[in-house]
Amino acid sequence: MASSNVPDIVVGRLPLYLRALTQMSEEGREISSSQELGGRLGISSAQIRKDLSQFGEFGKQGTGYNISYLIEQLRKILRLDHPWEVVLVGAGDLGSAIANYAGFFDRGFRITQVYDNDPEKVGTRVGAFIVHDTRIMGAEVKRENLKVAMLAVPAAFAQEVSEKLVEAGIKAILCYAPISLSLPESIQVQYIDPSLHLQHMTYYLP
Amino acid sequence: MASSNVPDIVVGRLPLYLRALTQMSEEGREISSSQELGGRLGISSAQIRKDLSQFGEFGKQGTGYNISYLIEQLRKILRLDHPWEVVLVGAGDLGSAIANYAGFFDRGFRITQVYDNDPEKVGTRVGAFIVHDTRIMGAEVKRENLKVAMLAVPAAFAQEVSEKLVEAGIKAILCYAPISLSLPESIQVQYIDPSLHLQHMTYYLP
Repeated sequence: MASSNVPDIVVGRLPLYLRALTQMSEEGREISSSQELGGRLGISSAQIRKDLSQFGEFGKQGTGYNISYLIEQLRKILRLDHPWEVVLVGAGDLGSAIANYAGFFDRGFRITQVYDNDPEKVGTRVGAFIVHDTRIMGAEVKRENLKVAMLAVPAAFAQEVSEKLVEAGIKAILCYAPISLSLPESIQVQYIDPSLHLQHMTYYLP
Repeated sequence: MASSNVPDIVVGRLPLYLRALTQMSEEGREISSSQELGGRLGISSAQIRKDLSQFGEFGKQGTGYNISYLIEQLRKILRLDHPWEVVLVGAGDLGSAIANYAGFFDRGFRITQVYDNDPEKVGTRVGAFIVHDTRIMGAEVKRENLKVAMLAVPAAFAQEVSEKLVEAGIKAILCYAPISLSLPESIQVQYIDPSLHLQHMTYYLP
């Protein structure tokens, strides 16, 4: 169902739709519309209809979307129909918060390995995990055939660690370090850098 | 210098340019080019020149950008020439990691107040801060004339807390809860939701 011709900006909105629909479903709702979805997300209903139409026919004019059906389809499109096992690198304050965060599983992700290079952290527990030494990371990631990584290491280590992850077969990296990684184009990389968002907003402040 | 006619997507790239230039400066570099900047960020040099041209003339054809001058100008454009004092709401695992994170100050932000509604957290210390009761939050935010907030509370509380912050004068909210806030259009809101990024990437995985 995934089409490689869909613009990346459209792909990026699908998880937002999935999140809003899941929230509606948890509220006990069964039917929604592009208008309602748009209202919740601050996106025009025309945009939502156009985005979804790239993947098929999900609602009939006048009757709206069946929420649970659309959720199921979006999960298939985003390849979330089985949970992804994730390796987390970095067991500092941020890594620990990530390891303890209970919200990933329902969204399709399960952390299964945690690494750090600090001898004082290796062997300790964060959340449900024992922190292992990054020296064994490559072999373990390869052995478990993991494809997704979260990187919560200091900026100075992020490039080096990301290269090791890619060598071990990782195809998608969510990077929390405030830098731009330089990796092969075939590797998916997304960034979490809260300062970028704060700086974006202050531009508009009076 | 800020122009309200600049597309938001352009504004959103300026912090990226600032981050890359700051990194170059820390490497001891003095001059750069739109080509080099683009190479580091995966953005075309034409796009960078076009974006920057919306705000003035920052480099001469053939001589490149003076890095420290461009940093200074970008900081002015993004209103980062004085540090913003920030209120953090939520002192759980994530809030604690945010409070302990040393990287905000150099980027223009300084957390000065931390709140939680959990009686077991109120009065305890996270990072350099005593956690205060959210019941006094509105009055304190108003008294200190704070404009920027970070929201690290569970999704179920985020809307209510954000409304209280706006009532107290907050104009920009960085929301870590996985929901869409419904607030007046004059309020700047940005979101950190790692699952959205992970789901965006898995679309492309083989």
